[in-house]
Amino acid sequence: MTTETLLVEGMTCEHCVMSVTEELTELDGVSGVDVRLVVGGSSEVTVTSSAPIDADALDSAVTEAGYQVVRS
Amino acid sequence: MTTETLLVEGMTCEHCVMSVTEELTELDGVSGVDVRLVVGGSSEVTVTSSAPIDADALDSAVTEAGYQVVRS
Repeated sequence: MTTETLLVEGMTCEHCVMSVTEELTELDGVSGVDVRLVVGGSSEVTVTSSAPIDADALDSAVTEAGYQVVRS
Repeated sequence: MTTETLLVEGMTCEHCVMSVTEELTELDGVSGVDVRLVVGGSSEVTVTSSAPIDADALDSAVTEAGYQVVRS
């Protein structure tokens, strides 16, 4: 099991949490997504997966949800 | 045609705008909802309808979406 934590900007509410969680959960191998929402700062998004996920795939999923990974 | 403007607290993003718009649009007679989002303050939600809508019904719809009318 692998855990990766991303810092994501622009998330402001539980709807944003749901959007990011949905997009990341759709990636192959992802078994869990946990978000610590920081309004006005970088939220911590922790992705648990059966094997390491490509950083570009994580980035793309967050972008698809409408937000930006600032550090992974 | 009637127009009513509500001040609503707690809306932070476009997802919040969608939630409030959906709930208000479901009320009988409502033909339009326009939101000026004010993050960290009171957003202006303007409801257009064929006849005046009961204030309690407007309040309930906003509450259902997860927010609070602070002045109508």
